[in-house]
Amino acid sequence: MNDILVMGHKNPDTDSICSSLIMANLVKKYGKDAKAVRLGNISKETEFVLNFLKIEAPELVEKVEEGQKLVLVDHNELAQSATGRENAKVLAVVDHHRIADFCTIEPLYYLAKPYGCTATILFEQYKALGIEINKEIGTLMLSAIVSDTLLLKSPTCTETDIKAVKELEDITGLKANEYGLEMLKAGTDLSTYSSQEVINLDAKEFCANDKKIVISQVNTADIEDVFSRKEELEFAMEKEISDKKLNLFMFVITDIINTNSKIIALGSDKELVEKAFDKKLDEFDSMLLEGVVSRKKQIAPQILEAAK
Amino acid sequence: MNDILVMGHKNPDTDSICSSLIMANLVKKYGKDAKAVRLGNISKETEFVLNFLKIEAPELVEKVEEGQKLVLVDHNELAQSATGRENAKVLAVVDHHRIADFCTIEPLYYLAKPYGCTATILFEQYKALGIEINKEIGTLMLSAIVSDTLLLKSPTCTETDIKAVKELEDITGLKANEYGLEMLKAGTDLSTYSSQEVINLDAKEFCANDKKIVISQVNTADIEDVFSRKEELEFAMEKEISDKKLNLFMFVITDIINTNSKIIALGSDKELVEKAFDKKLDEFDSMLLEGVVSRKKQIAPQILEAAK
Repeated sequence: MNDILVMGHKNPDTDSICSSLIMANLVKKYGKDAKAVRLGNISKETEFVLNFLKIEAPELVEKVEEGQKLVLVDHNELAQSATGRENAKVLAVVDHHRIADFCTIEPLYYLAKPYGCTATILFEQYKALGIEINKEIGTLMLSAIVSDTLLLKSPTCTETDIKAVKELEDITGLKANEYGLEMLKAGTDLSTYSSQEVINLDAKEFCANDKKIVISQVNTADIEDVFSRKEELEFAMEKEISDKKLNLFMFVITDIINTNSKIIALGSDKELVEKAFDKKLDEFDSMLLEGVVSRKKQIAPQILEAAK
Repeated sequence: MNDILVMGHKNPDTDSICSSLIMANLVKKYGKDAKAVRLGNISKETEFVLNFLKIEAPELVEKVEEGQKLVLVDHNELAQSATGRENAKVLAVVDHHRIADFCTIEPLYYLAKPYGCTATILFEQYKALGIEINKEIGTLMLSAIVSDTLLLKSPTCTETDIKAVKELEDITGLKANEYGLEMLKAGTDLSTYSSQEVINLDAKEFCANDKKIVISQVNTADIEDVFSRKEELEFAMEKEISDKKLNLFMFVITDIINTNSKIIALGSDKELVEKAFDKKLDEFDSMLLEGVVSRKKQIAPQILEAAK
């Protein structure tokens, strides 16, 4: 096993995969033996990026050994991290999420900025450290930013993300609007996934006030297309709730064209959703959240606040 | 009250005070209304620095209001922070300690590096952002680094700290060995303090496995001089243990000339110290730790590991 493993979160999205590769490359520039790994399956969106660049996906890792040196990107919360992390040694974190349930015995490198994407922080680091951003690294950065910010339309998107994308367009010769839309659309094809797979494609677990909450999100170009599978999706959600003893499973279907989300909420604490958004669930345990596309900014904080 | 308060830890040491002033200056350069404040009395060592520069100590703050915007330097753990912080809004952290018991609802700026001193991280930030380091800011940085690294002799001291001090000597025209030793010596004068004050001058509280642990440290040029007050110091320690329901109070007397420490351990869990250092306490609840000067690197991790 390599000396240092660089990893994003469970159920990796495009930012987690791309930023692992980008960060591993940076660590290697400093003469360290680092390797990007992943904690789950590659999404179709990420597959589009890897195929475009003709590069392999990082190796799948199920758990980490005691004392394994880790660099974390795009997450810090224990529930989103590799099994066994509590006994591993985290050397560094680069992230753009809130900090919670993260604890070390010794000092470490920790770099967080409230940007739309981890790759934007890494873009700045490459520039600050004078490390060349070649076409491959640039494409990984551009893909991650476009993915996390939904083509710069998400409320999480900052001026810094927009500036980075402009510079990365020059470096890669790609047009974010063309390449990015193609990439996002590749990610909306759910037809080959079982319901259980769909609800786990991009699921994140949170702990608040001893409540276990999963918020899962899929992108689509047509909400009703996904919603037509509601019955089987709910069956899969109920199974997750029972298997993992969850208090709430929230499934978010996000329309990347019109930037709205429809949600389905199940679990003994589903009223947390009503409290968080001050709106009643309809008779299908569902509600439309207009203008809501960002789990990180428009959903998770509101749910966590309601669970306090 | 100012829009943003910049603060170091309770029982502020020279790094906490200097880095608050340095960071507040940086934040103000970005047009924000920021002010350095302190969470406790100024030590004689820090007083030496402020008198040398003819500047006022930051204002004393006892607690912070709900929603108050904060920037934290030189700490992150809740127990070391301002009363009421759990309901304040932490915008940014610059620190060189382990991360523990730190949680936010939203993303933030977090910059940690395993350097000897917070001011070294800020020195790098000033340079990276192209902000001028004038003589006053440079002296605050130099003072903090010399203090935290015991004149670059502590095992926490890194190459980066050493390089920063060299550059800061040029900027300030000060010799670290001369100015710094004078500063450290000013801090060893405990004669005017009551025992209760002595044991709280630089006390830090830690939580591990539901155990409340205080590790307090004083610098001296003569260990026996402080140890001669053992009886009254222990009386004060017992009172703290009972008042704050502590499991362990560890008092560390550090010889800055010979770089050793003598410790006194009291409390129901004082055997944690024996486990941490694989050495028996003598009949005076004391032991000599040769070559040990750094709470952060040579004492706290060992105690926290033993408490796991």
